[in-house]
Amino acid sequence: MSLAEQKRIGKIAMLYVLDETRQDSVEELGWIHCSGKVGSMESNKIVAAIETAAKKNEVINGSIYRETHALYHAIMEALHGVTRGQVQLGTVLRTVGLRFTVVRGQPYEQPEEGEWIAVALYGTIGAPVKGLEHEAIGLGINHI
Amino acid sequence: MSLAEQKRIGKIAMLYVLDETRQDSVEELGWIHCSGKVGSMESNKIVAAIETAAKKNEVINGSIYRETHALYHAIMEALHGVTRGQVQLGTVLRTVGLRFTVVRGQPYEQPEEGEWIAVALYGTIGAPVKGLEHEAIGLGINHI
Amino acid sequence: MSLAEQKRIGKIAMLYVLDETRQDSVEELGWIHCSGKVGSMESNKIVAAIETAAKKNEVINGSIYRETHALYHAIMEALHGVTRGQVQLGTVLRTVGLRFTVVRGQPYEQPEEGEWIAVALYGTIGAPVKGLEHEAIGLGINHI
Amino acid sequence: MSLAEQKRIGKIAMLYVLDETRQDSVEELGWIHCSGKVGSMESNKIVAAIETAAKKNEVINGSIYRETHALYHAIMEALHGVTRGQVQLGTVLRTVGLRFTVVRGQPYEQPEEGEWIAVALYGTIGAPVKGLEHEAIGLGINHI
Amino acid sequence: MSLAEQKRIGKIAMLYVLDETRQDSVEELGWIHCSGKVGSMESNKIVAAIETAAKKNEVINGSIYRETHALYHAIMEALHGVTRGQVQLGTVLRTVGLRFTVVRGQPYEQPEEGEWIAVALYGTIGAPVKGLEHEAIGLGINHI
Amino acid sequence: MSLAEQKRIGKIAMLYVLDETRQDSVEELGWIHCSGKVGSMESNKIVAAIETAAKKNEVINGSIYRETHALYHAIMEALHGVTRGQVQLGTVLRTVGLRFTVVRGQPYEQPEEGEWIAVALYGTIGAPVKGLEHEAIGLGINHI
Repeated sequence: MSLAEQKRIGKIAMLYVLDETRQDSVEELGWIHCSGKVGSMESNKIVAAIETAAKKNEVINGSIYRETHALYHAIMEALHGVTRGQVQLGTVLRTVGLRFTVVRGQPYEQPEEGEWIAVALYGTIGAPVKGLEHEAIGLGINHI
Repeated sequence: MSLAEQKRIGKIAMLYVLDETRQDSVEELGWIHCSGKVGSMESNKIVAAIETAAKKNEVINGSIYRETHALYHAIMEALHGVTRGQVQLGTVLRTVGLRFTVVRGQPYEQPEEGEWIAVALYGTIGAPVKGLEHEAIGLGINHI
Repeated sequence: MSLAEQKRIGKIAMLYVLDETRQDSVEELGWIHCSGKVGSMESNKIVAAIETAAKKNEVINGSIYRETHALYHAIMEALHGVTRGQVQLGTVLRTVGLRFTVVRGQPYEQPEEGEWIAVALYGTIGAPVKGLEHEAIGLGINHI
Repeated sequence: MSLAEQKRIGKIAMLYVLDETRQDSVEELGWIHCSGKVGSMESNKIVAAIETAAKKNEVINGSIYRETHALYHAIMEALHGVTRGQVQLGTVLRTVGLRFTVVRGQPYEQPEEGEWIAVALYGTIGAPVKGLEHEAIGLGINHI
Repeated sequence: MSLAEQKRIGKIAMLYVLDETRQDSVEELGWIHCSGKVGSMESNKIVAAIETAAKKNEVINGSIYRETHALYHAIMEALHGVTRGQVQLGTVLRTVGLRFTVVRGQPYEQPEEGEWIAVALYGTIGAPVKGLEHEAIGLGINHI
Repeated sequence: MSLAEQKRIGKIAMLYVLDETRQDSVEELGWIHCSGKVGSMESNKIVAAIETAAKKNEVINGSIYRETHALYHAIMEALHGVTRGQVQLGTVLRTVGLRFTVVRGQPYEQPEEGEWIAVALYGTIGAPVKGLEHEAIGLGINHI
């Protein structure tokens, strides 16, 4: 039950969202992944965009609830990092423009630890006026 | 009032905390910075370790309250990403082992946007038993 | 100021929401009560459904604000149990299907402790797709 | 991906914590379970008591982190119902006396939904003076 | 069920905490009240100081739980204004120095609205170093 | 780095929002300020009303993001005092009617502490029915 040094799924997902070319390092591990972009004042649209991408790219199996449940909580945890206090956007007059990556793999040395999922978010958050914004980052990790 | 592409302070601080060798890129910009490690079940010790490092390395001027205030809120925001819900560690029976970086610079193209401070955290969070943990990340940004 | 063993209002309200036939045990105590069902992605509709039922069934007197105030806080506390972190539904892309009970009575042995109100919630929470859901429970108690 | 009517793990865990004799209904399903009592002003002791009981009674395998992780989040979610706002006890001058049950089983009709874990809490919360308290309830559910 | 213009209990409690000489205006209304000072890094000590003062000055009857319950929630709501996010002090390395007032009266025109209680807090919050602080204010109101 | 006794910006902003005639005391200090009223079930409209007033009255320079950022966080902190738990209004079926003041000045004795901004809120919060409401207060302070 220790994290394998070369398989740190959170770090890998974060480097990938910060730099698209890092996709290679995910594939070398043979891990499933997807990435995308979403901008919205509606937090539910952020959740929906990530869930849809993860299902379409078969990072999770959308017909099994336990996989959706694992992904949902990883997304919510990542959103805590982005929103830092209240998981709200438009209702507190702010908007985000985010890139996201979802990575599914085996980060632990012991095979019985099984698969885990990481959701990484990077982008900007701010007033609904271009430029009135700063960066924001979030990472959520869950067993799947 | 737009973020300069090569001066994305949040991304820079995050890459630096994920990879110590990235320190160079901060120095090329002429920005002040510091980094360190802290592990604890007491959240106040995390805050203290980062504040102490930032003052000792003159990233902030500890005798001016507005600088301490700016840093404090950036730390708290970064801790939201790490703790994802309640900014609590030992009181909910969990512990963290974190690396941190603090970067101070001018991320916007307009000089009147002045200086900003970014606090990036990366490490593990989990039960107070070695190995029972997963990764966690946080980023806080504030004007200074 | 101790809870009477046979008048545990929270337990009574919870058993009643889990099993409609338990209504009898509330009536034996001579306590006022109501129950109902509500499903929605909009958290305000959950609040409104419970308030409306409580007023229509005269569990509270809708023309006295202190009674509405007592009920409102009991509902909000019960919603904390259902939502577990952020009192949000549709804004974080989830929906609930709930049964609710509201019970008003004297749970303490001392008559000067007066009347209290309990709101119990039981149902499912999950993605806005049938079956992608698990159970959720909440209980709120307030003096009235 | 639908909940089997007779296998509603949350309802079963809640009825069990409200009434010890309900243990039979858990055993008829062939599900693993444990129960216990804990009273404290320190929230970490609540978490520790439940984790220890679940490991000792082999409801989870304490040497596999993913099982500890699943249980931990179920406990935290149940504590949200009990604390309703801030997962804090002594730090906001209140204490709890709780009974807890942990149930592990297959609540969904589809076998691929696998095992889930439910943590139910019932007891009193109040000032650190006997009798100055009312009831509190919490339920947390997670895939395992 | 409307607030009487001259009996705005929240405004009265706030003016009183901001200016000790305002005590007169509370007494003219014939309302019960108390005030005091408390400084601490431990949030439970803030709660205890206010509860103790309110009982000793007979603003509430400490032997009736419903009065303690009403006061407790008013204190917690006032602390939300002071702490603005997490009701934590020392655990996030900050301390407060506060004056408090507790006022009990009938703010509504209709006699059936009965008595309400207001807790007002005013002081400073900041790092545990003299001067590294700014002001903070909180108000909690509850029916009693 | 100590607060000047006659320049307590939070107290000044709060007295001003409680009593319009206090505007004079702000002007004697030579500080910039504005005030206004806003009532809404939509929390984003509260934020927008305050931001708009502060820009129109040149309390902040709307074309510099760091000033908008400082004001935004002060508003959010003030809203914590008003909402006491979840920064939500209509989504939890409640509405507010608020007066607000924004004050910008130098509250510290040391000139290097520079300018700070205070946002004070006072009004009523309650059900969307006239009279079903009690008072609420919030104060947010930030360096600018």
